[in-house]
Amino acid sequence: MNAQQLFEQIQAKRSFLCVGLDSDITKIPQHLLSTEDPIFEFNKAIVDATAEYAVSYKPNLAFYESLGVAGWISLHKTVRYIRERYPSQFIIADAKRGDIGNTSEMYAKAFFEGFDFDAVTLAPYMGSDTVTPFLKYEGKWSIILALTSNKSAADFQLLEDAANGKKIYEDVITTSAQWGTTDNTMYVVGATKAEMLGDVRQLIPNHFLLVPGVGAQGGSLSEVAKHGMNSQCGLLVNSSRAIIYADTTENFAAAAAKAAREVRDEMDILLKEKGL
Amino acid sequence: MNAQQLFEQIQAKRSFLCVGLDSDITKIPQHLLSTEDPIFEFNKAIVDATAEYAVSYKPNLAFYESLGVAGWISLHKTVRYIRERYPSQFIIADAKRGDIGNTSEMYAKAFFEGFDFDAVTLAPYMGSDTVTPFLKYEGKWSIILALTSNKSAADFQLLEDAANGKKIYEDVITTSAQWGTTDNTMYVVGATKAEMLGDVRQLIPNHFLLVPGVGAQGGSLSEVAKHGMNSQCGLLVNSSRAIIYADTTENFAAAAAKAAREVRDEMDILLKEKGL
Repeated sequence: MNAQQLFEQIQAKRSFLCVGLDSDITKIPQHLLSTEDPIFEFNKAIVDATAEYAVSYKPNLAFYESLGVAGWISLHKTVRYIRERYPSQFIIADAKRGDIGNTSEMYAKAFFEGFDFDAVTLAPYMGSDTVTPFLKYEGKWSIILALTSNKSAADFQLLEDAANGKKIYEDVITTSAQWGTTDNTMYVVGATKAEMLGDVRQLIPNHFLLVPGVGAQGGSLSEVAKHGMNSQCGLLVNSSRAIIYADTTENFAAAAAKAAREVRDEMDILLKEKGL
Repeated sequence: MNAQQLFEQIQAKRSFLCVGLDSDITKIPQHLLSTEDPIFEFNKAIVDATAEYAVSYKPNLAFYESLGVAGWISLHKTVRYIRERYPSQFIIADAKRGDIGNTSEMYAKAFFEGFDFDAVTLAPYMGSDTVTPFLKYEGKWSIILALTSNKSAADFQLLEDAANGKKIYEDVITTSAQWGTTDNTMYVVGATKAEMLGDVRQLIPNHFLLVPGVGAQGGSLSEVAKHGMNSQCGLLVNSSRAIIYADTTENFAAAAAKAAREVRDEMDILLKEKGL
C-alpha cells in the first residue's frame, strides 16, 4: 500500500483510526478463556466489530510474546484473519525493533514474509542500519519512533543537539527522512505532545504520522488534528485500551464498535473541517 | 545471578566469552536440515561443544522470529536446554526491546517468566519506561544499548548534547545508571569502538559491559581488555559468527569448540595480565 492508497481508505471510511490490539489475557472478557485460543477469539470479535470504523490495526507484539508460543500462534492467526477478511486494512506490527544490518534483515523477513504486516515500528537508536533493510520491501512501511507518548520520552528525545540547536527527535526525523520516501516511512509522534506536532510538520509536511496516546494515555484528538493534519490527512491515530476494553462483559464487541464509531464520527468532522 | 557470581564464573572458566546464537537456517550445516528441529539441534551441539569455554550464551531473537512459530519453539527449547544442562551459564535475550511502561512489563514477563533468561538487551530511546519494569525482577539484568558496534551508530549516539558537551550515548549511560545498580544493569559497548571503552569506564567504572563486534565485525579482543577491563573483569565479550560458523560441515561442533577454546586461551592471558 502506498500513501495515496492509504489516504483513499481514510476518505472512504471517514476515519483515520488505528485500533491497537494490546490484547491482554488478564483483561479480555472471562467467558473467552474457555475457548481454544482466547486472544484470537477476542481479536476476531474486536476486528469484526470495528473494521467499518478503522483503517488500521496495530497488534502490540509484547502482549503476544508474553504468552510464548501460544501468543505467537494467536498473532499469526490474527494477522491472517485481518488480511483475508479486510484486505484494505493497514496492519502494523508494533514491535519497536532496531538492530545492526544483518539482524534487521531477519526482522524484516519475520514481519514482511513470515507475517504479512504492512508496517513495523522501529527504534532509531542504532541509526540507519535499523531501518534500511525494511525499506527494500516494495509497498511495506517503516514507522520510526520520533517523539513518543510516554513521560520518559523526555529523557533522551528532548535533549538538544549542540551542532544545530535541534532536539534529538528532530535530528532523528530530519536524518531518517532521507533514507526512504513518504511512501515507505512514517513517524511515531505521541498525542500527549500534540503542540509539538506543529514542529514536526515543519520538518516533514508530507509524511504520515502514527499518533498513539489518544484515549487511555490522555491525548486530545482535536488537538492532534489541529497541529498534525495535512492535505492528505497524514495521520493514523491509535487508540487501544479505550476501544478494546470499552466493556469487559459478553457485550465487549458491541461496546468496542460503539467506541470506535464515536471516534470515527469525530474524525469525520475533523476531516470535513480540513476540506477532506 | 549477581555481578559477584558472574565474576566467579569468569574466574573459574578463565573466560569472559559470550557465544552469540545467531542461528540462521540458511547457514547451519546442511545435514541438520533433515532433523525435526534443525535450529535446536544446531544450538545444542554448539552449546555442548563450547560450554567449557564460555560463561554466557546470547540468542539473537531476530533469527528465531524469522522462522515464525517454529523459531519460537526452537528458542524455548534452547534456553531450557542451557538452563538444565549448564545452570551456571548467563543467558541473554538479544531482543533490543524498548517501549512504554505497561508494554515493557509484558516484555519483562515474556523474557523472565515465559523464558528463563538472565538478561535482556534494551534500546533506551524511550527513556526510563523502557528499563524500569525489567529491574523489578530480582537477579535479572537489563543490558542497555549505549555505543553499538555498527557503523550507523554514529547517526544519533555520537551527537553532542548542548547542555553538557557529552555525547548522547554518554547521557544514556549517566542517566540510566541511576535507574538500577551494578547488579542488574549492563551496557552494550561495541568492540569496534574499543578506544571509546576508556571513556565509558570513566563514567561507569564498575558496571559490566557486553561487548559485541569481536570476530566477524572486526573488533580486537586485546584492545577491548586494555580499555574496558576492571578489577572484576567487568566484560562479557560476544562472538557469534566466528564461532558458530567456524565450519559448516559435519565437523561444525568441533570447529566451534576449537574457535571458542582459542578465544578462552587469549582471555585467560588477558585476565592474568590484569592479575585476575
